[in-house]
Amino acid sequence: MSRWEPNARGRLEQAALDLYRERGFEQTTAAQIAERAGLTERTFFRHYADKREVLFGGSQLLEGLFVDTLAGTPDTVAPIDAIASTLEAVAAFFVERHEYARQRQAVITANAELRERELIKLASLSAALADTLRRRGVGEPAASLTAEAGIAVFKVGFERWVADDGGRGLAEFLRESLDELRTVAAGR
Amino acid sequence: MSRWEPNARGRLEQAALDLYRERGFEQTTAAQIAERAGLTERTFFRHYADKREVLFGGSQLLEGLFVDTLAGTPDTVAPIDAIASTLEAVAAFFVERHEYARQRQAVITANAELRERELIKLASLSAALADTLRRRGVGEPAASLTAEAGIAVFKVGFERWVADDGGRGLAEFLRESLDELRTVAAGR
Repeated sequence: MSRWEPNARGRLEQAALDLYRERGFEQTTAAQIAERAGLTERTFFRHYADKREVLFGGSQLLEGLFVDTLAGTPDTVAPIDAIASTLEAVAAFFVERHEYARQRQAVITANAELRERELIKLASLSAALADTLRRRGVGEPAASLTAEAGIAVFKVGFERWVADDGGRGLAEFLRESLDELRTVAAGR
Repeated sequence: MSRWEPNARGRLEQAALDLYRERGFEQTTAAQIAERAGLTERTFFRHYADKREVLFGGSQLLEGLFVDTLAGTPDTVAPIDAIASTLEAVAAFFVERHEYARQRQAVITANAELRERELIKLASLSAALADTLRRRGVGEPAASLTAEAGIAVFKVGFERWVADDGGRGLAEFLRESLDELRTVAAGR
């Protein structure tokens, strides 16, 4: 990059979120996002492939956090307990981000294309977790089912946290969600 | 419809699947599918919105089967057991369809757009199951988690059945998958 553009990604992300909330996702262009962020359209496309991707800039980081944390738990820990520790680490990542998460979720919920992209993100996360579990020696179908269960817990807990007033942390919602899954699976 | 076109949907579906396997999804047009099926392009678009939808013509039927079976189980049955009965009924729907399912899955796996559409189908199924459970009086987050767990079991069991030689029925794979989820959730 030739020009000094401090935190260009963060500025584009916030500008995109503001415009999507004001005008809707469909009605916003990459050029408008760049303008609002005080950057050029060229800068926009240096950072993001299209206007959908702006809201998913953190996905790779989140996947890395999931995978690294899971890979770092001792092999002697049961897979579901390793997932529980992983969710604790992931929750820490979202501390102080409730308001942003709430705004982002509202924009995603309102648009089919963004909902699809969110599903792809979660499917990719699940595949990465299953892969990590297999490398830890977990067989199939246990690895895939543990990964799918972990992502289900994350999805449901995250949605409840976002819908809440922000008084309780994500970690609490994820723990509650995992406990509920255990109860449900036990047939109670 | 003005002309008599016996089993037009089935013919279009089979023609599409054959062409996607021969040439790839990207390289096939709706007109070519219609031609292969001995029908007009206009007939194609009377039945399907686009070439992606041809492989998802059974989704509504499948969702109806899931929902009706689940809604029909007695309220006294634990949610996860109601899901188990539902999966048995769903498995019966796929008897004699292993070869078709195998071919369809191979086409979907090879194309990102089709994989996305499959994710949307599964998310829609999960939402419909959660809704049905709530109407049965199951609270949240139990309803959403049971639904997500049920779809995870279906997805993993289905993929294993498709990858197998067809000697064992889908019901067996779904049962095995649900048992494994219970074991995993119990932390064993």
